[in-house]
Amino acid sequence: MSPFFASRWVDVPEGLTEVVAGGLPQGFRAAGVACGLKADGGVDLGLMVSDAPETVSAARFTRSGVLAAPVLVTQQRARLDALRVVAANSGNANAATGNRGLDEAARMQGAAAMAGRSQPDQVAVCSTGVIGVQLDGRKVVRGLLDASGKLTTDDVDFTAAIMTTDKFAKRVTLRLELSGGPVLLSAQAKGAGMIQPAFATMLCFVQTDAALEATTADLLLGVCVKRSFDRISVDGQLSTNDTVILQAGGASGVRVAPESDDELAFGQALDALLRQLALLIVKDGEGARRVGRVAVRGGDAKGVERVARAIANSPLVKTALYGGDPNWGRIAQSIGMALSGSAGLVYDISIEGMQVASGGQGIDHDVSELAQRVTRPEVEYWVGLPGDGAETEVFFSDLGHEYITINADYTT
Amino acid sequence: MSPFFASRWVDVPEGLTEVVAGGLPQGFRAAGVACGLKADGGVDLGLMVSDAPETVSAARFTRSGVLAAPVLVTQQRARLDALRVVAANSGNANAATGNRGLDEAARMQGAAAMAGRSQPDQVAVCSTGVIGVQLDGRKVVRGLLDASGKLTTDDVDFTAAIMTTDKFAKRVTLRLELSGGPVLLSAQAKGAGMIQPAFATMLCFVQTDAALEATTADLLLGVCVKRSFDRISVDGQLSTNDTVILQAGGASGVRVAPESDDELAFGQALDALLRQLALLIVKDGEGARRVGRVAVRGGDAKGVERVARAIANSPLVKTALYGGDPNWGRIAQSIGMALSGSAGLVYDISIEGMQVASGGQGIDHDVSELAQRVTRPEVEYWVGLPGDGAETEVFFSDLGHEYITINADYTT
Repeated sequence: MSPFFASRWVDVPEGLTEVVAGGLPQGFRAAGVACGLKADGGVDLGLMVSDAPETVSAARFTRSGVLAAPVLVTQQRARLDALRVVAANSGNANAATGNRGLDEAARMQGAAAMAGRSQPDQVAVCSTGVIGVQLDGRKVVRGLLDASGKLTTDDVDFTAAIMTTDKFAKRVTLRLELSGGPVLLSAQAKGAGMIQPAFATMLCFVQTDAALEATTADLLLGVCVKRSFDRISVDGQLSTNDTVILQAGGASGVRVAPESDDELAFGQALDALLRQLALLIVKDGEGARRVGRVAVRGGDAKGVERVARAIANSPLVKTALYGGDPNWGRIAQSIGMALSGSAGLVYDISIEGMQVASGGQGIDHDVSELAQRVTRPEVEYWVGLPGDGAETEVFFSDLGHEYITINADYTT
Repeated sequence: MSPFFASRWVDVPEGLTEVVAGGLPQGFRAAGVACGLKADGGVDLGLMVSDAPETVSAARFTRSGVLAAPVLVTQQRARLDALRVVAANSGNANAATGNRGLDEAARMQGAAAMAGRSQPDQVAVCSTGVIGVQLDGRKVVRGLLDASGKLTTDDVDFTAAIMTTDKFAKRVTLRLELSGGPVLLSAQAKGAGMIQPAFATMLCFVQTDAALEATTADLLLGVCVKRSFDRISVDGQLSTNDTVILQAGGASGVRVAPESDDELAFGQALDALLRQLALLIVKDGEGARRVGRVAVRGGDAKGVERVARAIANSPLVKTALYGGDPNWGRIAQSIGMALSGSAGLVYDISIEGMQVASGGQGIDHDVSELAQRVTRPEVEYWVGLPGDGAETEVFFSDLGHEYITINADYTT
């Protein structure tokens, strides 16, 4: 077990190991610079470049009805299956900025294309930070020029450039053994608050030197996002800017053929990578002490999903998790709220393997043992509803004092 | 303006005045005693009795799928249009307690009938407190016996008996001038957390010596609950126990005839009363500093409701309200989340009368003036969506440190 794969909720496939020294896969270079968007003068602009002209990519975005300008520009003016360059800034979300915001995002795309020696439609732009403030494009253009001269084979500065309220960097380099030889995957993620359903205020970039077809990249990314960033919640808030991009440059010469064992292995590796990154985002949920996982099983897929979301987003459940309080009544309350109108509901509840309710009624259990178990760093809740055939899970952070401190005073 | 009607969001009709000395309407008596349910030995059991055999009543309950035993017993075994007695305890919700909980609620009903010299089917029972712990019925029965000897013409002890995390009592006595003479209304409410949609972890009891028909009582209560307890959120959590009961004893001899001006006046008085009580519940939202009101207008009733709820329940909006932070970008984010999938959404946003966004884009405004205005005790947000014809409002509390402190350590 490596330091990166720390959660019991991630299955690490055989043949996948962490490259502790870090570094990008062959054919990728990255930089991070301070261009003046963050008030504290920190690193706030990242540039990721794939040198291979035939780079293959796939992308996923927030489903918010209020899309940030860089999301619109990337979706509408970039070839999502052939992205060579990613430019990402923190300190400003460039959201709710109207036509001027779109212009600035387009300008950022153009400058990043020059910096990465590619075409504008091969560039994805991403922003994270405050909503509703115009992005200063001159700073971004100057910063990209600066970054183009600082491209290196590691992603440390790039990772720093996309962080906002994150307390720790979320990055890793992995080696995967395939039938044709080893390939590398590296990934950088950010996100701490405004994290929920259709994935998060999160950005995640994955690079690999494996050779993938665009359809394979899209298929695998879609499946893995559904099992990772789609299943986490810090505060139940869907963001305007969420973006996940996978880039495959092919420099290893190792091809992942569609429907091969290698595709399966690559998919499992990507799944473990994204699930662990998603869990790190939850763990870094603004001020979080603990990570919860709620699994719900029953006969009605919609009901199962509603119950899991209601529990994961309940401030009462989340403050109990923060306080190490084995208050399962709040789980029962969330179930009732999620399935309001369905009177006489029966349900079973277990926490960390101890059953506390059966058939809608509390049952005797060792309260002091349970109180111990809910102070673990990862706490698992299980809910059984009538019927069978549907099951889901949501990972969530607790809700504590630091969330308030961070969020009560963010713009001012 | 009286001390009770403190909010600008309540229209106080002419002819309605506060009786500062308090007291119950003629024909009602109440008591509150300590029966040992609260660990601190506080007053935890209330008894409200209408002496008139022909008392008329109406009631509304939570829509949760997990109903507490007292809610089930009251709904199924009481004549909701003829309730003479209300027995309510704090310290234990008697929810998720199965058949034994139902037995205890029925026993409470029976004992309260004896204490109030009425039939069991004229008794409503209500509980509030921890979920999932069996109610000790012997304590309740002894307590009701005790309470029956302590019935008085004021509701001070009764009000104390229904409080849990409430920081202040929520009660009032009002005098209303009708064509046939004056009538009194008194009311007691509790609720601080687990307050949302289909109304709240709240209890509210209203007594009047006006003579109403049961259909009138039901109609007016239904309308007024929709404009009060249905429109508030502290933490977005629907409770298992919410109950609102209106009792009309008729001792004043003043009749409120259906479809008369008096009915309109009584309805307006009840509306003002319940709206102000609802606002007091929000104001007492666990640890709240400020109360927000979000009004949303547009062409799609469902969308308008979704947006209002998303804003009222956003921890980002709520922490900004707590911090006095004019971060309107979080309003935009909530709109996008509520209407996810509808790309290119346009919207207008005003805060405390200052417009900050138009057509989905931030507009110039006096930021320091706005920063001042959002530190007021009541802050109003207005959102305009495309179209017209639908409008709604939600009142909500902020989210601050004390909410965490209160809820992180509630059972233990």
